[in-house]
Amino acid sequence: MDDLSFENFKDEALKNTAVKKEYDALGPVFELRRKLIKLRTAKGVTQEQLARIMGTNKSNISRLESGENISYPTFKTISKYAAALGYKVDIEFRPV
Amino acid sequence: MDDLSFENFKDEALKNTAVKKEYDALGPVFELRRKLIKLRTAKGVTQEQLARIMGTNKSNISRLESGENISYPTFKTISKYAAALGYKVDIEFRPV
Repeated sequence: MDDLSFENFKDEALKNTAVKKEYDALGPVFELRRKLIKLRTAKGVTQEQLARIMGTNKSNISRLESGENISYPTFKTISKYAAALGYKVDIEFRPV
Repeated sequence: MDDLSFENFKDEALKNTAVKKEYDALGPVFELRRKLIKLRTAKGVTQEQLARIMGTNKSNISRLESGENISYPTFKTISKYAAALGYKVDIEFRPV
């Protein structure tokens, strides 16, 4: 699903208030995962290659990216993922 | 220790290469913790008050802020901390 159709899909889904409430609660982590995947794919690095660089295994990368068990990644995991791709994590806080 | 003397102390300490290496590995989480504490104190909210808003207890907040057991906060904890103070978390990735 390319970015444009994902956006359309998302807009439609968010018209449902129950979905919106859940999304808002989980929104930040979905956004984070999209950014992590974009970071990796933009560099043309596969999950397998990234796992090797990070010293972990592919299933951990795919779990992190798919949010299979919706467990939130720790800040350390996010920092290691980004560092393996040559990036530094910058966290900012915006008033809601 | 006010901000200015903390900065001087930090500059001095980082002249030691071993300290610098450790700091760089832990740097991101130290910066994160300083930002979280600044967020809370700028609003004049105590650890106790924040704990009540978040539905947790004061010792969890103080452990999160002090990095006592250097366990990295999860993205969920960071998001809940920020949301309790009226902020949204924005993660960006900067090339190193």
